[in-house]
Amino acid sequence: MTKKMKKKIMIIHGPNLNLLGTREPEIYGKMSLREINSRLRTLAGKRNVSLKIAQTNSEGSIIDLLHKAASWADGVILNPGAYTHYSWAIYDAINACGLRVIEVHLTNIHAREEFRHRSVIAPACLGQIAGFGWRSYVLALEALLEHE
Amino acid sequence: MTKKMKKKIMIIHGPNLNLLGTREPEIYGKMSLREINSRLRTLAGKRNVSLKIAQTNSEGSIIDLLHKAASWADGVILNPGAYTHYSWAIYDAINACGLRVIEVHLTNIHAREEFRHRSVIAPACLGQIAGFGWRSYVLALEALLEHE
Amino acid sequence: MTKKMKKKIMIIHGPNLNLLGTREPEIYGKMSLREINSRLRTLAGKRNVSLKIAQTNSEGSIIDLLHKAASWADGVILNPGAYTHYSWAIYDAINACGLRVIEVHLTNIHAREEFRHRSVIAPACLGQIAGFGWRSYVLALEALLEHE
Amino acid sequence: MTKKMKKKIMIIHGPNLNLLGTREPEIYGKMSLREINSRLRTLAGKRNVSLKIAQTNSEGSIIDLLHKAASWADGVILNPGAYTHYSWAIYDAINACGLRVIEVHLTNIHAREEFRHRSVIAPACLGQIAGFGWRSYVLALEALLEHE
Amino acid sequence: MTKKMKKKIMIIHGPNLNLLGTREPEIYGKMSLREINSRLRTLAGKRNVSLKIAQTNSEGSIIDLLHKAASWADGVILNPGAYTHYSWAIYDAINACGLRVIEVHLTNIHAREEFRHRSVIAPACLGQIAGFGWRSYVLALEALLEHE
Amino acid sequence: MTKKMKKKIMIIHGPNLNLLGTREPEIYGKMSLREINSRLRTLAGKRNVSLKIAQTNSEGSIIDLLHKAASWADGVILNPGAYTHYSWAIYDAINACGLRVIEVHLTNIHAREEFRHRSVIAPACLGQIAGFGWRSYVLALEALLEHE
Amino acid sequence: MTKKMKKKIMIIHGPNLNLLGTREPEIYGKMSLREINSRLRTLAGKRNVSLKIAQTNSEGSIIDLLHKAASWADGVILNPGAYTHYSWAIYDAINACGLRVIEVHLTNIHAREEFRHRSVIAPACLGQIAGFGWRSYVLALEALLEHE
Amino acid sequence: MTKKMKKKIMIIHGPNLNLLGTREPEIYGKMSLREINSRLRTLAGKRNVSLKIAQTNSEGSIIDLLHKAASWADGVILNPGAYTHYSWAIYDAINACGLRVIEVHLTNIHAREEFRHRSVIAPACLGQIAGFGWRSYVLALEALLEHE
Amino acid sequence: MTKKMKKKIMIIHGPNLNLLGTREPEIYGKMSLREINSRLRTLAGKRNVSLKIAQTNSEGSIIDLLHKAASWADGVILNPGAYTHYSWAIYDAINACGLRVIEVHLTNIHAREEFRHRSVIAPACLGQIAGFGWRSYVLALEALLEHE
Amino acid sequence: MTKKMKKKIMIIHGPNLNLLGTREPEIYGKMSLREINSRLRTLAGKRNVSLKIAQTNSEGSIIDLLHKAASWADGVILNPGAYTHYSWAIYDAINACGLRVIEVHLTNIHAREEFRHRSVIAPACLGQIAGFGWRSYVLALEALLEHE
Amino acid sequence: MTKKMKKKIMIIHGPNLNLLGTREPEIYGKMSLREINSRLRTLAGKRNVSLKIAQTNSEGSIIDLLHKAASWADGVILNPGAYTHYSWAIYDAINACGLRVIEVHLTNIHAREEFRHRSVIAPACLGQIAGFGWRSYVLALEALLEHE
Amino acid sequence: MTKKMKKKIMIIHGPNLNLLGTREPEIYGKMSLREINSRLRTLAGKRNVSLKIAQTNSEGSIIDLLHKAASWADGVILNPGAYTHYSWAIYDAINACGLRVIEVHLTNIHAREEFRHRSVIAPACLGQIAGFGWRSYVLALEALLEHE
Repeated sequence: MTKKMKKKIMIIHGPNLNLLGTREPEIYGKMSLREINSRLRTLAGKRNVSLKIAQTNSEGSIIDLLHKAASWADGVILNPGAYTHYSWAIYDAINACGLRVIEVHLTNIHAREEFRHRSVIAPACLGQIAGFGWRSYVLALEALLEHE
Repeated sequence: MTKKMKKKIMIIHGPNLNLLGTREPEIYGKMSLREINSRLRTLAGKRNVSLKIAQTNSEGSIIDLLHKAASWADGVILNPGAYTHYSWAIYDAINACGLRVIEVHLTNIHAREEFRHRSVIAPACLGQIAGFGWRSYVLALEALLEHE
Repeated sequence: MTKKMKKKIMIIHGPNLNLLGTREPEIYGKMSLREINSRLRTLAGKRNVSLKIAQTNSEGSIIDLLHKAASWADGVILNPGAYTHYSWAIYDAINACGLRVIEVHLTNIHAREEFRHRSVIAPACLGQIAGFGWRSYVLALEALLEHE
Repeated sequence: MTKKMKKKIMIIHGPNLNLLGTREPEIYGKMSLREINSRLRTLAGKRNVSLKIAQTNSEGSIIDLLHKAASWADGVILNPGAYTHYSWAIYDAINACGLRVIEVHLTNIHAREEFRHRSVIAPACLGQIAGFGWRSYVLALEALLEHE
Repeated sequence: MTKKMKKKIMIIHGPNLNLLGTREPEIYGKMSLREINSRLRTLAGKRNVSLKIAQTNSEGSIIDLLHKAASWADGVILNPGAYTHYSWAIYDAINACGLRVIEVHLTNIHAREEFRHRSVIAPACLGQIAGFGWRSYVLALEALLEHE
Repeated sequence: MTKKMKKKIMIIHGPNLNLLGTREPEIYGKMSLREINSRLRTLAGKRNVSLKIAQTNSEGSIIDLLHKAASWADGVILNPGAYTHYSWAIYDAINACGLRVIEVHLTNIHAREEFRHRSVIAPACLGQIAGFGWRSYVLALEALLEHE
Repeated sequence: MTKKMKKKIMIIHGPNLNLLGTREPEIYGKMSLREINSRLRTLAGKRNVSLKIAQTNSEGSIIDLLHKAASWADGVILNPGAYTHYSWAIYDAINACGLRVIEVHLTNIHAREEFRHRSVIAPACLGQIAGFGWRSYVLALEALLEHE
Repeated sequence: MTKKMKKKIMIIHGPNLNLLGTREPEIYGKMSLREINSRLRTLAGKRNVSLKIAQTNSEGSIIDLLHKAASWADGVILNPGAYTHYSWAIYDAINACGLRVIEVHLTNIHAREEFRHRSVIAPACLGQIAGFGWRSYVLALEALLEHE
Repeated sequence: MTKKMKKKIMIIHGPNLNLLGTREPEIYGKMSLREINSRLRTLAGKRNVSLKIAQTNSEGSIIDLLHKAASWADGVILNPGAYTHYSWAIYDAINACGLRVIEVHLTNIHAREEFRHRSVIAPACLGQIAGFGWRSYVLALEALLEHE
Repeated sequence: MTKKMKKKIMIIHGPNLNLLGTREPEIYGKMSLREINSRLRTLAGKRNVSLKIAQTNSEGSIIDLLHKAASWADGVILNPGAYTHYSWAIYDAINACGLRVIEVHLTNIHAREEFRHRSVIAPACLGQIAGFGWRSYVLALEALLEHE
Repeated sequence: MTKKMKKKIMIIHGPNLNLLGTREPEIYGKMSLREINSRLRTLAGKRNVSLKIAQTNSEGSIIDLLHKAASWADGVILNPGAYTHYSWAIYDAINACGLRVIEVHLTNIHAREEFRHRSVIAPACLGQIAGFGWRSYVLALEALLEHE
Repeated sequence: MTKKMKKKIMIIHGPNLNLLGTREPEIYGKMSLREINSRLRTLAGKRNVSLKIAQTNSEGSIIDLLHKAASWADGVILNPGAYTHYSWAIYDAINACGLRVIEVHLTNIHAREEFRHRSVIAPACLGQIAGFGWRSYVLALEALLEHE
């Protein structure tokens, strides 16, 4: 990722993340997705990053978004929600689009139900950050910006 | 579920249920989805229930429907079709929307192929009713109405 | 099940159900088995059903009861308790006696411990109803009466 | 097994075998248990064998019968029915009573449902005979008589 | 498949196949989907076949396409991409629509990652052809035309 | 367990334990159940404990005994024999009766056949003591008396 | 199997059975294969049976022998040795040749190493007899002659 | 595969295929192996292909045939029969001989018994074609001729 | 264990037990290791036992301690902490040193996380005592003293 | 984590990390542990953090270090190396010491060998960061500082 | 193995080893089987050993060779090739012939594909040597000569 | 390994090997580690090899020893004892230090308990030698010296 130009980063929020703030707040926290996005846009402004953000509950749409990102973005921050655990199609999409993708999770998925311990998507990603609430996105943004 | 007002119930038919009547009738019966819905509407009328019915083949759309139901319905009757067996995203959606959801199946899924014996969605539901053809929906409706 | 004559239905309560009301009420509810049976008898009276009810903690006795039901009942409502998960002998008994059997559970067994997710008995049954407390029996009774 | 005296053999029929003849005759045949026992008694008479026969649907009663046989019988022919596949208690009973036990099955259990392929009881037995209908008992009787 | 009339065949390309040519060309080859479709249309013309072609990244849309094909096509050539390995909903759709479906793969899925070795869709298909690049489609077309 | 009054303890011996002394003495020792019970009664006398002892080969009877103990005993010492490894019904019974139960085994079950390594009953018990022959019961008695 | 004519039975001894008598006699007994065959021929003479016997260590040859038997024999007694546990090709051969085949074993395979507990061949056979030494063959011969 | 010279192709039929036509015709069809070979020879003539065909029931002989093909053939069409599912030795042979091998099956192995779903041989092959009866061979021949 | 001389017993506390009292007191209790040791020393004095006590967080050190105990102790009480579940090296050490070792646990490991249900060390021990808090050590001491 | 005072953070490098720079640099990068530590110390200075750093190849020593950290540190950054995948003792230690621990990995463990996909330690941690080389530590430091 | 007389050793090369030198030389090396045998014969001459060498691709022939070796050889060096991983029949043959057999492999099978990690033959062998190319045979020869 | 200079070889004996001679001599033989080392030193003298030998019961110390060997030794002979079966940390250490390591075992681990059949360390080693008692070390030494 060359440092000369404005970095372009796509953030994709997967299924059920639109309900953040009201969805099981004892697990996912009280901050709404709107507020998280607002904070990320502020940070992006400070770091001279061009940001696109999308949310979808559809596996196929996540694939579409990744394909579109391929021609625009320098990197992707992806929270695949529960698709993390069975969507080989998203795994294929990440490999197919050739982008740097960081998988993020609000919660520490490795400390929750057994089925959340395995990510079928992670093998196609640069790395994984899990467990820091909305700051997982911030850390991922930093990671993308610093990665050479 | 308070008993004073008209109850509002959402019915969501999952993948391939639009083909009922023509789809493997020896397994699923000869009654069309249109006819089932008609009977359910009749019953709802008798029981003073406000009913919304939707069918979709898309996992993402089922999640969207559950999210929308959250602000309207007192309960949901969900036949997730084959998504029953792998859609952790729908499981998350049910938990996220905080609704009472009853999982129904036309057939006795526990008596069919091995892969149909496990429901990943059931742990988020109030209960499961399987094996009574279109009457599974009727029983679920009764169950929702009587549940306190 | 012909509709002309009084229907004859056998209800079999399996192991530990005699303790209902005192047994882990936060899981199984506060209603005693006596009270549940009383309500079922009332309902049966209204629906013109002849009812026999039995409770036993013994796997062998459940088999004996099923055999005896074969010569009398039009259908059986069976709550096999924990035998649900390993009693292939009861599974065989249901197949052997040729009766319509509905498996019921007070709790949503699919939402509890892993071992409760699999029913070895369900493949021999007409259907399964789980999660509605004592109303699971009521729903099963309705299902038997309406089933053609 | 000494050959001087009249041999004493116990036959134990396990769960659901009392229904033979009416129970799924396409699988288990049309001969009743009464008739099978009659044929075995005739054969025993010819072979100078003292025979005791019992049937029970209860796992505990099978254990009791094995214990009692220990002080009387020279050998046991046991059809454990579905207990074959999970009753470690019967396995222990056979080891505990120190008798020669032959496990028999009317059907070829290895050609049926997956769960019937494993016998937890067989490791405590002299041998296993499966698949020859009522003649499985006859073969077992011959095997016991000829075994030294 | 009667031979009198022009055959009608539907080709469905699943997730990520729109990226062919640029997507991991060392695995999937350098030919674009447009070019493959062009070749298939040429071949269809020669063989007097009426051809419809669609591509989608969405599981639900594949089901929709199969349902629509049911009223038009004599057969379907389906490349389900990664959905091959977990979409029981597509499996159900194939069974539901009653069409002859051939599953094709550009690569030899049995020689790749472990998760690609199992197809949950194949049991509903006429057959499977894998490993011949774009020619897998040609072979499937031939197979559909010759199948009686 | 209050210390003011005479403690009341139930001891339940499960399947095949009636054969102790003659049953595989190289594994289970040469002491008969009668003798073990006699020693336990002597010890109970010294420790001011009221003791009830029962033995049964039947899973259902063990459940019955636990239910009855619920209204009398301050604690139960249970040797479930081979039921240890598959009787979820006994597991439920222990939870249902709300008693302090200690699981004991004459032999070190963890050093024997693979199937004996898992106890499905232990999760409902206060603790497990295995491997000390008849003294396992003595240790359990001490444990019950000292437990607050 | 019609009873009018002389029955024709093929006996196939699988791998390592040529070493009987010297091979681990504490497991397999001291009788040589020659002697077993001699006894079987004597018995066959008495029962008016035409007998062919073969031994081979080769999986392919067992298949060849089964194919040849198809045009001559009324039934086959097969001891597949260790091929029992993995030779799906022999399983196919039995199904392909349409013969009645009885699987026999000298030892009780269900009481030995774990890998010997599963027979992949049994599902294609009429039945299985295991654990009676050379008499397993005799019992199988009787079973074939009596089977209708 | 250069296109200048006459292509040389080896066809190897594995175990039990010699019985085609009589072997379970409802599964494998009514055409004999002789007839299939005849059709393949006719096609080979038209396509200017030099063809060698062999059938064997022996795993070792399949390996021998592959070794011999290595010095003559441009490609191999192999139907390994049931060896498909466990013969790592044939897998090794394909890798060792460095030939292009296409695995074919008359039936759709992925739609049959569980054990037929996995091919241990496929990872060494160019591709797999299954489910088209004798035409599977024809398709494989086309695939070999067109493959560059 | 001869009773003439003063018994010599080694107690080994494994990983994290040094934190007792402060470590998750709702699970492990509020008593410190120092206090437990003090009580054990008092009891040892009363029973005329010579006691050595050690604590270590290192797997290798537990092995060293067992080796040293071999030349001094008559028996060992070992709480292997989490090493219980994977340290085959400690298992080997117990077998190697030839000592009587009793495995103890403060908590009922069979009632906690799945991974704690299996002890790889128990097969080398005399017995296992689990679930009685610090009294587990007392019971083990009694067991060692009484064991002949 | 209150923000008033200087934060105290412990960094623990597990097995084989002392070889960084020379150890498989194509996987782990060319930067030495000394250099990484130097960069972390610089960053800590800027962020007003008091830092302690340790490296050990011993599982027991990691536990010791965690115990010591408990009385000093506000948080721990732990790279457990291969112990990640089997050290339940370290898992216990994290729970026992009650500290906020972040698990870090230089590489994306989810994209490497199968055994590296599961962390038995993660369930006791606040979160996990993997795949960003030495920057994984930087991100963890940021995460600890920002976490409330 | 007495040291007085000339030792007699059989070497059996299993499937595909005849292709050594040309077969995947990057895995198996460039030395032909002829050359390996020549070196082994030279070594045998020096060590006063009488040597027989055979190669076969057939599982049955390996069994035949082992049987023949039983009456001549003092020991066997066996490279079972891929049969290592599934041939229980060869395992039986080694036990049956009562010879000292050393299993050798050119490559380190434990470092290759998962299926090569398990040897079903090793439990019947004296030992296993793997990973040293043709020198594995030399080491095995030394091991046989020195073994008492 | 160049042959000009004196070879330098490190021998590492893992856990419990210090007890050789007294430790289960029926399994491990009667020779002490001291005596084995003495023989290896004698052999090393003859072969002009510089030898270092160490024994430790600690997993961490084995890693330390491997790290130190990296700067001195031309090869390592490692007997990891029971760590063989779970120490991924030692596996990493071997890969990290870049040395030629041969894994040796006194016993044939593949013929013992199930857990000993898998070596997690072997994939990082040059080869494995198991089953020849102390001579396993001698063979490994020869293998290291001859390996080019």
